[in-house]
Amino acid sequence: MDRIHEAFRHQGPLHLMDATLVHVAPGEVDIALPFRPEVAQHHGFFHGGVIATVLDVACGFAALTRMEPEQEVLTAEFKLNFLAPARGESLVARGRVVKHGRLLSVCTGEAFSTSGGQEQPVALMQATMIGVRRRG
Amino acid sequence: MDRIHEAFRHQGPLHLMDATLVHVAPGEVDIALPFRPEVAQHHGFFHGGVIATVLDVACGFAALTRMEPEQEVLTAEFKLNFLAPARGESLVARGRVVKHGRLLSVCTGEAFSTSGGQEQPVALMQATMIGVRRRG
Amino acid sequence: MDRIHEAFRHQGPLHLMDATLVHVAPGEVDIALPFRPEVAQHHGFFHGGVIATVLDVACGFAALTRMEPEQEVLTAEFKLNFLAPARGESLVARGRVVKHGRLLSVCTGEAFSTSGGQEQPVALMQATMIGVRRRG
Amino acid sequence: MDRIHEAFRHQGPLHLMDATLVHVAPGEVDIALPFRPEVAQHHGFFHGGVIATVLDVACGFAALTRMEPEQEVLTAEFKLNFLAPARGESLVARGRVVKHGRLLSVCTGEAFSTSGGQEQPVALMQATMIGVRRRG
Repeated sequence: MDRIHEAFRHQGPLHLMDATLVHVAPGEVDIALPFRPEVAQHHGFFHGGVIATVLDVACGFAALTRMEPEQEVLTAEFKLNFLAPARGESLVARGRVVKHGRLLSVCTGEAFSTSGGQEQPVALMQATMIGVRRRG
Repeated sequence: MDRIHEAFRHQGPLHLMDATLVHVAPGEVDIALPFRPEVAQHHGFFHGGVIATVLDVACGFAALTRMEPEQEVLTAEFKLNFLAPARGESLVARGRVVKHGRLLSVCTGEAFSTSGGQEQPVALMQATMIGVRRRG
Repeated sequence: MDRIHEAFRHQGPLHLMDATLVHVAPGEVDIALPFRPEVAQHHGFFHGGVIATVLDVACGFAALTRMEPEQEVLTAEFKLNFLAPARGESLVARGRVVKHGRLLSVCTGEAFSTSGGQEQPVALMQATMIGVRRRG
Repeated sequence: MDRIHEAFRHQGPLHLMDATLVHVAPGEVDIALPFRPEVAQHHGFFHGGVIATVLDVACGFAALTRMEPEQEVLTAEFKLNFLAPARGESLVARGRVVKHGRLLSVCTGEAFSTSGGQEQPVALMQATMIGVRRRG
Protein backbone atom coordinates (compact mmCIF):
# COMPACT_ATOMS: atom_id res chain seq x y z
CA MET A 1 0.00 0.00 0.00
CA ASP A 2 3.11 2.23 -0.09
CA ARG A 3 2.25 3.28 -3.65
CA ILE A 4 -0.98 4.86 -2.42
CA HIS A 5 0.85 6.95 0.16
CA GLU A 6 3.46 7.84 -2.45
CA ALA A 7 0.79 8.83 -5.01
CA PHE A 8 -1.07 10.86 -2.41
CA ARG A 9 2.00 13.02 -1.79
CA HIS A 10 1.75 14.28 -5.40
CA GLN A 11 -1.85 15.54 -5.24
CA GLY A 12 -1.44 19.33 -5.07
CA PRO A 13 -5.06 20.26 -4.36
CA LEU A 14 -5.37 17.76 -1.51
CA HIS A 15 -2.51 19.40 0.34
CA LEU A 16 -4.10 22.78 -0.34
CA MET A 17 -7.19 21.33 1.40
CA ASP A 18 -5.21 19.79 4.26
CA ALA A 19 -6.57 16.32 3.39
CA THR A 20 -5.01 13.11 4.72
CA LEU A 21 -5.20 9.41 3.91
CA VAL A 22 -6.94 7.72 6.84
CA HIS A 23 -7.51 4.19 5.53
CA VAL A 24 -5.90 2.08 2.80
CA ALA A 25 -6.77 -1.57 2.16
CA PRO A 26 -7.25 -3.67 -0.98
CA GLY A 27 -10.08 -1.99 -2.90
CA GLU A 28 -10.63 0.60 -0.17
CA VAL A 29 -9.30 4.12 0.43
CA ASP A 30 -10.60 6.76 2.86
CA ILE A 31 -9.56 10.41 2.88
CA ALA A 32 -10.45 12.98 5.54
CA LEU A 33 -10.12 16.74 5.82
CA PRO A 34 -10.93 19.31 8.50
CA PHE A 35 -13.35 22.18 7.96
CA ARG A 36 -11.76 25.54 7.12
CA PRO A 37 -13.28 28.62 5.44
CA GLU A 38 -11.08 27.96 2.39
CA VAL A 39 -12.97 24.72 1.61
CA ALA A 40 -16.43 26.23 2.19
CA GLN A 41 -19.16 27.60 -0.01
CA HIS A 42 -21.19 30.68 0.90
CA HIS A 43 -23.28 29.06 3.68
CA GLY A 44 -20.23 27.71 5.46
CA PHE A 45 -20.71 24.09 4.31
CA PHE A 46 -17.98 22.06 2.60
CA HIS A 47 -17.89 23.10 -1.07
CA GLY A 48 -19.23 20.64 -3.64
CA GLY A 49 -16.03 20.85 -5.65
CA VAL A 50 -14.01 19.89 -2.59
CA ILE A 51 -16.31 16.91 -1.97
CA ALA A 52 -15.95 15.90 -5.63
CA THR A 53 -12.17 16.17 -5.43
CA VAL A 54 -11.69 13.97 -2.37
CA LEU A 55 -14.23 11.39 -3.57
CA ASP A 56 -12.55 11.24 -6.98
CA VAL A 57 -9.15 10.65 -5.38
CA ALA A 58 -10.56 8.12 -2.88
CA CYS A 59 -12.18 6.14 -5.72
CA GLY A 60 -9.13 6.40 -7.97
CA PHE A 61 -6.75 5.25 -5.24
CA ALA A 62 -9.11 2.43 -4.23
CA ALA A 63 -8.90 1.24 -7.87
CA LEU A 64 -5.12 1.68 -7.82
CA THR A 65 -4.78 -0.74 -4.88
CA ARG A 66 -6.04 -3.47 -7.24
CA MET A 67 -3.84 -2.60 -10.23
CA GLU A 68 -0.51 -4.00 -11.37
CA PRO A 69 2.68 -2.29 -10.11
CA GLU A 70 3.45 -0.92 -13.59
CA GLN A 71 0.01 0.66 -13.93
CA GLU A 72 -1.29 4.00 -12.82
CA VAL A 73 -4.87 5.13 -12.52
CA LEU A 74 -6.80 7.75 -14.49
CA THR A 75 -10.39 8.84 -13.93
CA ALA A 76 -12.43 8.17 -17.07
CA GLU A 77 -15.56 9.73 -15.59
CA PHE A 78 -17.62 10.04 -12.45
CA LYS A 79 -21.13 11.00 -11.43
CA LEU A 80 -21.89 12.63 -8.12
CA ASN A 81 -25.15 13.20 -6.26
CA PHE A 82 -25.30 15.60 -3.34
CA LEU A 83 -27.50 14.25 -0.55
CA ALA A 84 -27.39 16.92 2.17
CA PRO A 85 -25.50 20.10 3.13
CA ALA A 86 -22.03 19.08 4.29
CA ARG A 87 -21.77 20.85 7.61
CA GLY A 88 -19.48 19.78 10.40
CA GLU A 89 -15.91 19.68 11.67
CA SER A 90 -14.63 17.25 9.11
CA LEU A 91 -15.38 15.43 5.89
CA VAL A 92 -14.59 11.79 5.15
CA ALA A 93 -14.61 10.33 1.62
CA ARG A 94 -14.71 6.54 1.21
CA GLY A 95 -13.83 5.00 -2.15
CA ARG A 96 -14.63 1.33 -2.79
CA VAL A 97 -14.04 -0.87 -5.86
CA VAL A 98 -17.29 -2.49 -6.99
CA LYS A 99 -15.87 -4.22 -10.05
CA HIS A 100 -12.21 -4.53 -10.94
CA GLY A 101 -11.74 -5.22 -14.64
CA ARG A 102 -8.68 -5.71 -16.80
CA LEU A 103 -9.31 -2.35 -18.47
CA LEU A 104 -11.83 -0.45 -16.38
CA SER A 105 -12.73 -0.43 -12.70
CA VAL A 106 -16.09 0.73 -11.39
CA CYS A 107 -16.08 2.34 -7.94
CA THR A 108 -18.56 3.76 -5.47
CA GLY A 109 -17.67 6.70 -3.26
CA GLU A 110 -19.52 7.93 -0.20
CA ALA A 111 -18.84 11.20 1.60
CA PHE A 112 -19.85 11.91 5.19
CA SER A 113 -19.59 15.05 7.26
CA THR A 114 -18.95 14.56 10.95
CA SER A 115 -20.23 16.83 13.66
CA GLY A 116 -19.92 16.03 17.39
CA GLY A 117 -18.94 12.46 16.56
CA GLN A 118 -22.05 11.91 14.39
CA GLU A 119 -21.66 10.97 10.72
CA GLN A 120 -24.10 12.25 8.10
CA PRO A 121 -24.00 11.05 4.47
CA VAL A 122 -23.58 14.06 2.17
CA ALA A 123 -22.69 12.74 -1.28
CA LEU A 124 -22.67 9.59 -3.41
CA MET A 125 -20.33 8.94 -6.36
CA GLN A 126 -20.24 6.29 -9.09
CA ALA A 127 -16.96 6.36 -11.02
CA THR A 128 -15.10 4.62 -13.82
CA MET A 129 -11.32 4.34 -13.50
CA ILE A 130 -8.78 3.23 -16.13
CA GLY A 131 -5.53 1.45 -15.49
CA VAL A 132 -2.82 2.72 -17.83
CA ARG A 133 0.86 1.94 -18.18
CA ARG A 134 2.85 4.33 -16.01
CA ARG A 135 4.47 7.29 -17.81
CA GLY A 136 8.25 7.62 -17.85
CA MET B 1 -25.62 39.85 -13.46
CA ASP B 2 -24.38 41.46 -10.26
CA ARG B 3 -25.69 38.52 -8.24
CA ILE B 4 -23.28 36.21 -10.07
CA HIS B 5 -20.29 38.38 -9.19
CA GLU B 6 -21.58 38.67 -5.64
CA ALA B 7 -22.07 34.87 -5.35
CA PHE B 8 -18.63 34.24 -6.81
CA ARG B 9 -16.99 36.24 -4.02
CA HIS B 10 -18.26 33.65 -1.51
CA GLN B 11 -16.70 30.56 -3.14
CA GLY B 12 -13.73 29.79 -0.90
CA PRO B 13 -12.09 27.10 -3.03
CA LEU B 14 -12.20 29.24 -6.17
CA HIS B 15 -10.14 31.94 -4.49
CA LEU B 16 -7.76 29.27 -3.23
CA MET B 17 -7.38 28.31 -6.93
CA ASP B 18 -7.04 31.91 -8.12
CA ALA B 19 -10.08 31.50 -10.41
CA THR B 20 -11.91 34.45 -11.95
CA LEU B 21 -15.26 35.01 -13.68
CA VAL B 22 -14.48 35.85 -17.31
CA HIS B 23 -17.96 35.80 -18.90
CA VAL B 24 -21.49 36.20 -17.56
CA ALA B 25 -24.59 36.33 -19.78
CA PRO B 26 -28.11 34.87 -19.51
CA GLY B 27 -27.64 31.12 -19.30
CA GLU B 28 -23.85 31.39 -19.71
CA VAL B 29 -20.96 31.63 -17.27
CA ASP B 30 -17.23 31.14 -17.93
CA ILE B 31 -14.55 30.79 -15.28
CA ALA B 32 -10.79 30.77 -15.87
CA LEU B 33 -7.78 29.97 -13.73
CA PRO B 34 -4.03 30.02 -14.28
CA PHE B 35 -1.82 26.96 -13.92
CA ARG B 36 0.01 26.65 -10.61
CA PRO B 37 1.53 23.56 -8.93
CA GLU B 38 -1.16 23.77 -6.24
CA VAL B 39 -3.89 22.91 -8.78
CA ALA B 40 -1.90 20.10 -10.43
CA GLN B 41 -1.87 16.35 -10.17
CA HIS B 42 1.34 14.31 -10.24
CA HIS B 43 2.13 14.76 -13.97
CA GLY B 44 1.77 18.53 -13.79
CA PHE B 45 -1.66 18.66 -15.44
CA PHE B 46 -4.64 20.45 -13.92
CA HIS B 47 -6.15 18.16 -11.27
CA GLY B 48 -9.47 16.48 -12.08
CA GLY B 49 -11.00 17.76 -8.86
CA VAL B 50 -10.09 21.32 -9.80
CA ILE B 51 -11.68 20.84 -13.23
CA ALA B 52 -14.80 19.41 -11.55
CA THR B 53 -14.97 22.34 -9.15
CA VAL B 54 -14.81 25.11 -11.74
CA LEU B 55 -17.21 23.31 -14.11
CA ASP B 56 -19.68 22.76 -11.27
CA VAL B 57 -19.58 26.45 -10.35
CA ALA B 58 -19.78 27.57 -14.01
CA CYS B 59 -22.87 25.36 -14.55
CA GLY B 60 -24.49 26.37 -11.27
CA PHE B 61 -23.98 30.08 -11.92
CA ALA B 62 -25.20 29.72 -15.52
CA ALA B 63 -28.41 28.25 -14.06
CA LEU B 64 -28.55 31.04 -11.46
CA THR B 65 -28.63 33.70 -14.20
CA ARG B 66 -32.03 32.30 -15.21
CA MET B 67 -33.51 32.04 -11.72
CA GLU B 68 -35.76 34.40 -9.78
CA PRO B 69 -34.07 37.01 -7.52
CA GLU B 70 -35.29 35.25 -4.36
CA GLN B 71 -33.83 31.90 -5.46
CA GLU B 72 -30.39 30.48 -5.03
CA VAL B 73 -28.85 27.52 -6.82
CA LEU B 74 -27.81 24.12 -5.48
CA THR B 75 -26.15 21.33 -7.43
CA ALA B 76 -28.35 18.23 -7.35
CA GLU B 77 -25.82 16.15 -9.24
CA PHE B 78 -23.34 16.20 -12.10
CA LYS B 79 -21.50 13.76 -14.32
CA LEU B 80 -18.08 14.50 -15.71
CA ASN B 81 -16.03 12.84 -18.46
CA PHE B 82 -12.36 13.58 -18.82
CA LEU B 83 -11.34 13.86 -22.48
CA ALA B 84 -7.61 14.62 -22.43
CA PRO B 85 -4.82 15.59 -20.01
CA ALA B 86 -5.34 19.24 -19.05
CA ARG B 87 -1.93 20.70 -19.71
CA GLY B 88 -1.31 24.36 -20.42
CA GLU B 89 -1.08 27.84 -18.95
CA SER B 90 -4.72 28.18 -18.09
CA LEU B 91 -8.03 26.39 -17.80
CA VAL B 92 -11.41 27.74 -18.92
CA ALA B 93 -14.73 26.25 -17.79
CA ARG B 94 -17.88 27.13 -19.73
CA GLY B 95 -21.29 26.44 -18.18
CA ARG B 96 -24.41 26.65 -20.36
CA VAL B 97 -28.09 26.08 -19.53
CA VAL B 98 -29.59 23.47 -21.86
CA LYS B 99 -33.03 23.41 -20.25
CA HIS B 100 -34.33 25.82 -17.64
CA GLY B 101 -37.24 24.35 -15.71
CA ARG B 102 -39.35 25.66 -12.86
CA LEU B 103 -37.73 23.19 -10.49
CA LEU B 104 -34.62 21.80 -12.15
CA SER B 105 -32.19 23.16 -14.72
CA VAL B 106 -30.04 20.93 -16.89
CA CYS B 107 -26.65 22.34 -17.88
CA THR B 108 -23.69 21.35 -20.01
CA GLY B 109 -20.15 22.31 -19.04
CA GLU B 110 -17.05 22.20 -21.19
CA ALA B 111 -13.51 22.69 -19.94
CA PHE B 112 -10.59 23.68 -22.14
CA SER B 113 -6.91 24.03 -21.39
CA THR B 114 -5.07 26.71 -23.30
CA SER B 115 -1.47 26.53 -24.33
CA GLY B 116 0.20 29.07 -26.61
CA GLY B 117 -3.19 30.51 -27.54
CA GLN B 118 -4.54 27.09 -28.57
CA GLU B 119 -7.61 25.64 -26.84
CA GLN B 120 -7.93 21.93 -26.21
CA PRO B 121 -11.15 20.35 -24.82
CA VAL B 122 -10.32 18.46 -21.63
CA ALA B 123 -13.61 17.63 -19.91
CA LEU B 124 -17.38 17.48 -20.48
CA MET B 125 -20.02 17.84 -17.75
CA GLN B 126 -23.76 17.25 -17.65
CA ALA B 127 -25.36 18.68 -14.52
CA THR B 128 -28.71 19.11 -12.77
CA MET B 129 -29.21 22.28 -10.74
CA ILE B 130 -32.05 23.13 -8.33
CA GLY B 131 -33.44 26.55 -7.63
CA VAL B 132 -34.30 26.92 -3.95
CA ARG B 133 -35.60 29.79 -1.87
CA ARG B 134 -32.67 31.78 -0.51
CA ARG B 135 -31.72 31.08 3.12
CA GLY B 136 -32.08 33.90 5.60
CA MET C 1 -47.93 -1.11 -1.85
CA ASP C 2 -50.98 -1.47 -4.11
CA ARG C 3 -50.05 1.73 -5.91
CA ILE C 4 -46.80 0.12 -7.09
CA HIS C 5 -48.64 -2.87 -8.58
CA GLU C 6 -51.20 -0.48 -10.11
CA ALA C 7 -48.44 1.74 -11.60
CA PHE C 8 -46.61 -1.30 -12.93
CA ARG C 9 -49.64 -2.35 -14.99
CA HIS C 10 -49.29 0.88 -17.02
CA GLN C 11 -45.67 0.36 -18.11
CA GLY C 12 -46.01 -0.68 -21.78
CA PRO C 13 -42.38 -1.64 -22.42
CA LEU C 14 -42.19 -3.84 -19.33
CA HIS C 15 -45.05 -5.97 -20.57
CA LEU C 16 -43.38 -6.11 -23.98
CA MET C 17 -40.36 -7.53 -22.09
CA ASP C 18 -42.44 -9.92 -19.97
CA ALA C 19 -41.13 -8.30 -16.77
CA THR C 20 -42.78 -8.83 -13.37
CA LEU C 21 -42.63 -7.18 -9.95
CA VAL C 22 -40.99 -9.67 -7.59
CA HIS C 23 -40.46 -7.59 -4.43
CA VAL C 24 -42.05 -4.43 -3.05
CA ALA C 25 -41.23 -2.98 0.38
CA PRO C 26 -40.72 0.56 1.71
CA GLY C 27 -37.82 1.99 -0.31
CA GLU C 28 -37.28 -1.30 -2.18
CA VAL C 29 -38.56 -2.65 -5.50
CA ASP C 30 -37.28 -5.65 -7.48
CA ILE C 31 -38.25 -6.50 -11.06
CA ALA C 32 -37.37 -9.70 -12.92
CA LEU C 33 -37.64 -10.82 -16.53
CA PRO C 34 -36.84 -14.03 -18.38
CA PHE C 35 -34.35 -14.23 -21.23
CA ARG C 36 -35.86 -14.16 -24.74
CA PRO C 37 -34.24 -13.24 -28.09
CA GLU C 38 -36.38 -10.08 -28.20
CA VAL C 39 -34.53 -8.63 -25.19
CA ALA C 40 -31.08 -9.62 -26.44
CA GLN C 41 -28.27 -7.83 -28.22
CA HIS C 42 -26.21 -9.47 -30.96
CA HIS C 43 -24.20 -11.84 -28.71
CA GLY C 44 -27.32 -13.21 -27.03
CA PHE C 45 -26.89 -11.27 -23.77
CA PHE C 46 -29.60 -9.07 -22.24
CA HIS C 47 -29.59 -5.75 -24.11
CA GLY C 48 -28.21 -2.70 -22.29
CA GLY C 49 -31.37 -0.74 -23.03
CA VAL C 50 -33.47 -3.45 -21.42
CA ILE C 51 -31.26 -3.40 -18.34
CA ALA C 52 -31.55 0.39 -18.20
CA THR C 53 -35.33 0.21 -18.51
CA VAL C 54 -35.92 -2.24 -15.67
CA LEU C 55 -33.39 -0.54 -13.39
CA ASP C 56 -35.00 2.85 -14.06
CA VAL C 57 -38.44 1.49 -13.20
CA ALA C 58 -37.16 -0.39 -10.12
CA CYS C 59 -35.50 2.81 -8.81
CA GLY C 60 -38.50 4.99 -9.66
CA PHE C 61 -40.95 2.65 -7.96
CA ALA C 62 -38.67 2.27 -4.93
CA ALA C 63 -38.81 6.09 -4.61
CA LEU C 64 -42.59 6.01 -5.13
CA THR C 65 -43.03 3.73 -2.10
CA ARG C 66 -41.77 6.63 0.05
CA MET C 67 -43.88 9.37 -1.54
CA GLU C 68 -47.21 10.88 -0.52
CA PRO C 69 -50.40 9.32 -1.97
CA GLU C 70 -51.07 12.38 -4.14
CA GLN C 71 -47.59 12.30 -5.66
CA GLU C 72 -46.25 10.40 -8.63
CA VAL C 73 -42.65 9.79 -9.57
CA LEU C 74 -40.63 11.07 -12.53
CA THR C 75 -37.04 10.21 -13.37
CA ALA C 76 -34.93 13.38 -13.39
CA GLU C 77 -31.81 11.53 -14.50
CA PHE C 78 -29.81 8.36 -14.03
CA LYS C 79 -26.31 7.08 -14.65
CA LEU C 80 -25.61 3.46 -15.45
CA ASN C 81 -22.39 1.44 -15.50
CA PHE C 82 -22.26 -1.93 -17.16
CA LEU C 83 -20.15 -4.38 -15.16
CA ALA C 84 -20.28 -7.66 -17.14
CA PRO C 85 -22.13 -9.29 -20.05
CA ALA C 86 -25.66 -10.13 -18.87
CA ARG C 87 -25.95 -13.77 -19.84
CA GLY C 88 -28.35 -16.19 -18.22
CA GLU C 89 -31.94 -17.32 -17.91
CA SER C 90 -33.21 -14.24 -16.15
CA LEU C 91 -32.40 -10.71 -15.11
CA VAL C 92 -33.23 -9.12 -11.75
CA ALA C 93 -33.16 -5.36 -11.14
CA ARG C 94 -33.12 -4.08 -7.56
CA GLY C 95 -33.96 -0.44 -6.84
CA ARG C 96 -33.21 1.03 -3.40
CA VAL C 97 -33.75 4.52 -1.98
CA VAL C 98 -30.50 5.92 -0.58
CA LYS C 99 -31.88 9.34 0.36
CA HIS C 100 -35.53 10.35 0.37
CA GLY C 101 -35.92 14.12 0.19
CA ARG C 102 -38.94 16.38 0.09
CA LEU C 103 -38.21 17.21 -3.55
CA LEU C 104 -35.70 14.69 -4.85
CA SER C 105 -34.89 11.09 -4.01
CA VAL C 106 -31.55 9.50 -4.76
CA CYS C 107 -31.62 5.77 -5.54
CA THR C 108 -29.17 3.00 -6.29
CA GLY C 109 -30.05 0.18 -8.67
CA GLU C 110 -28.25 -3.12 -9.12
CA ALA C 111 -28.92 -5.61 -11.90
CA PHE C 112 -27.98 -9.29 -11.74
CA SER C 113 -28.23 -12.02 -14.33
CA THR C 114 -28.95 -15.50 -13.01
CA SER C 115 -27.71 -18.69 -14.56
CA GLY C 116 -28.12 -22.11 -12.93
CA GLY C 117 -29.14 -20.47 -9.67
CA GLN C 118 -26.00 -18.29 -9.59
CA GLU C 119 -26.32 -14.51 -9.53
CA GLN C 120 -23.81 -12.29 -11.31
CA PRO C 121 -23.82 -8.46 -10.97
CA VAL C 122 -24.13 -6.92 -14.44
CA ALA C 123 -24.97 -3.24 -13.97
CA LEU C 124 -25.00 -0.44 -11.38
CA MET C 125 -27.26 2.64 -11.50
CA GLN C 126 -27.35 5.88 -9.55
CA ALA C 127 -30.58 7.81 -10.13
CA THR C 128 -32.41 10.99 -9.13
CA MET C 129 -36.20 10.81 -8.87
CA ILE C 130 -38.70 13.66 -8.46
CA GLY C 131 -42.01 13.50 -6.66
CA VAL C 132 -44.63 15.56 -8.49
CA ARG C 133 -48.32 16.16 -7.91
CA ARG C 134 -50.30 13.52 -9.78
CA ARG C 135 -51.83 14.62 -13.10
CA GLY C 136 -55.60 14.66 -13.43
CA MET D 1 -21.25 2.33 -43.08
CA ASP D 2 -22.53 -1.15 -43.94
CA ARG D 3 -21.34 -2.44 -40.58
CA ILE D 4 -23.75 -0.08 -38.81
CA HIS D 5 -26.72 -1.39 -40.79
CA GLU D 6 -25.50 -4.95 -40.22
CA ALA D 7 -25.10 -4.38 -36.46
CA PHE D 8 -28.51 -2.73 -36.26
CA ARG D 9 -30.18 -5.87 -37.62
CA HIS D 10 -29.03 -7.75 -34.48
CA GLN D 11 -30.59 -5.42 -31.90
CA GLY D 12 -33.64 -7.36 -30.70
CA PRO D 13 -35.25 -4.63 -28.59
CA LEU D 14 -35.04 -2.08 -31.40
CA HIS D 15 -37.09 -4.29 -33.69
CA LEU D 16 -39.55 -4.84 -30.86
CA MET D 17 -39.85 -1.02 -30.79
CA ASP D 18 -40.10 -0.68 -34.57
CA ALA D 19 -37.03 1.58 -34.62
CA THR D 20 -35.08 2.37 -37.80
CA LEU D 21 -31.69 3.85 -38.67
CA VAL D 22 -32.35 7.21 -40.33
CA HIS D 23 -28.85 8.71 -40.58
CA VAL D 24 -25.35 7.24 -40.57
CA ALA D 25 -22.19 9.30 -41.15
CA PRO D 26 -18.71 9.31 -39.58
CA GLY D 27 -19.25 9.98 -35.88
CA GLU D 28 -23.02 10.39 -36.33
CA VAL D 29 -25.97 8.00 -36.07
CA ASP D 30 -29.69 8.86 -35.83
CA ILE D 31 -32.43 6.38 -34.94
CA ALA D 32 -36.19 7.05 -35.15
CA LEU D 33 -39.26 5.20 -33.95
CA PRO D 34 -43.01 5.81 -34.21
CA PHE D 35 -45.27 6.20 -31.21
CA ARG D 36 -47.21 3.08 -30.18
CA PRO D 37 -48.81 2.17 -26.82
CA GLU D 38 -46.15 -0.54 -26.35
CA VAL D 39 -43.40 2.09 -26.04
CA ALA D 40 -45.40 4.37 -23.73
CA GLN D 41 -45.51 4.98 -20.00
CA HIS D 42 -48.76 5.58 -18.12
CA HIS D 43 -49.44 9.12 -19.42
CA GLY D 44 -49.04 8.07 -23.04
CA PHE D 45 -45.56 9.58 -23.48
CA PHE D 46 -42.57 7.65 -24.81
CA HIS D 47 -41.17 5.56 -21.93
CA GLY D 48 -37.87 6.68 -20.40
CA GLY D 49 -36.40 3.20 -20.88
CA VAL D 50 -37.21 3.34 -24.58
CA ILE D 51 -35.53 6.74 -24.86
CA ALA D 52 -32.49 5.38 -23.02
CA THR D 53 -32.32 2.37 -25.31
CA VAL D 54 -32.36 4.27 -28.61
CA LEU D 55 -29.95 6.93 -27.33
CA ASP D 56 -27.55 4.25 -26.09
CA VAL D 57 -27.60 2.50 -29.46
CA ALA D 58 -27.30 5.81 -31.38
CA CYS D 59 -24.25 6.78 -29.28
CA GLY D 60 -22.70 3.32 -29.50
CA PHE D 61 -23.11 3.12 -33.27
CA ALA D 62 -21.80 6.68 -33.71
CA ALA D 63 -18.66 5.52 -31.86
CA LEU D 64 -18.54 2.36 -33.99
CA THR D 65 -18.34 4.42 -37.20
CA ARG D 66 -14.93 5.65 -35.97
CA MET D 67 -13.55 2.27 -34.90
CA GLU D 68 -11.31 -0.22 -36.71
CA PRO D 69 -13.00 -2.97 -38.77
CA GLU D 70 -11.91 -5.66 -36.30
CA GLN D 71 -13.39 -3.79 -33.34
CA GLU D 72 -16.87 -3.83 -31.92
CA VAL D 73 -18.40 -1.37 -29.49
CA LEU D 74 -19.54 -1.86 -25.90
CA THR D 75 -21.19 0.71 -23.66
CA ALA D 76 -19.06 1.30 -20.56
CA GLU D 77 -21.60 3.68 -19.04
CA PHE D 78 -23.99 6.48 -19.80
CA LYS D 79 -25.83 9.25 -17.97
CA LEU D 80 -29.20 10.48 -19.11
CA ASN D 81 -31.21 13.58 -18.18
CA PHE D 82 -34.87 13.84 -19.05
CA LEU D 83 -35.78 17.35 -20.20
CA ALA D 84 -39.51 17.20 -21.00
CA PRO D 85 -42.33 14.68 -21.47
CA ALA D 86 -41.77 12.90 -24.79
CA ARG D 87 -45.15 13.27 -26.43
CA GLY D 88 -45.67 13.11 -30.18
CA GLU D 89 -45.87 10.89 -33.22
CA SER D 90 -42.26 9.91 -33.28
CA LEU D 91 -38.99 9.98 -31.39
CA VAL D 92 -35.56 10.70 -32.88
CA ALA D 93 -32.29 9.88 -31.08
CA ARG D 94 -29.07 11.49 -32.32
CA GLY D 95 -25.71 10.09 -31.23
CA ARG D 96 -22.54 12.11 -31.84
CA VAL D 97 -18.88 11.36 -31.00
CA VAL D 98 -17.37 14.18 -28.97
CA LYS D 99 -13.97 12.57 -28.45
CA HIS D 100 -12.71 9.44 -30.18
CA GLY D 101 -9.87 7.85 -28.24
CA ARG D 102 -7.78 4.75 -28.82
CA LEU D 103 -9.52 3.03 -25.90
CA LEU D 104 -12.61 5.02 -25.00
CA SER D 105 -14.96 7.26 -26.97
CA VAL D 106 -17.10 9.92 -25.35
CA CYS D 107 -20.44 10.63 -27.03
CA THR D 108 -23.36 12.99 -26.62
CA GLY D 109 -26.90 11.89 -27.43
CA GLU D 110 -29.95 14.08 -27.89
CA ALA D 111 -33.52 12.81 -28.16
CA PHE D 112 -36.37 14.80 -29.68
CA SER D 113 -40.06 14.04 -29.93
CA THR D 114 -41.81 15.33 -33.04
CA SER D 115 -45.39 16.43 -33.16
CA GLY D 116 -46.96 18.11 -36.21
CA GLY D 117 -43.53 18.62 -37.76
CA GLN D 118 -42.20 20.38 -34.62
CA GLU D 119 -39.20 18.97 -32.74
CA GLN D 120 -38.95 19.20 -28.98
CA PRO D 121 -35.80 18.16 -27.05
CA VAL D 122 -36.74 15.50 -24.49
CA ALA D 123 -33.51 13.95 -23.23
CA LEU D 124 -29.74 14.47 -23.12
CA MET D 125 -27.16 11.67 -22.78
CA GLN D 126 -23.42 11.65 -22.09
CA ALA D 127 -21.87 8.23 -22.73
CA THR D 128 -18.57 6.37 -22.66
CA MET D 129 -18.04 3.65 -25.27
CA ILE D 130 -15.25 1.05 -25.47
CA GLY D 131 -13.82 -0.44 -28.63
CA VAL D 132 -13.04 -4.13 -28.11
CA ARG D 133 -11.73 -6.83 -30.40
CA ARG D 134 -14.66 -8.56 -32.09
CA ARG D 135 -15.70 -11.93 -30.59
CA GLY D 136 -15.40 -15.00 -32.78
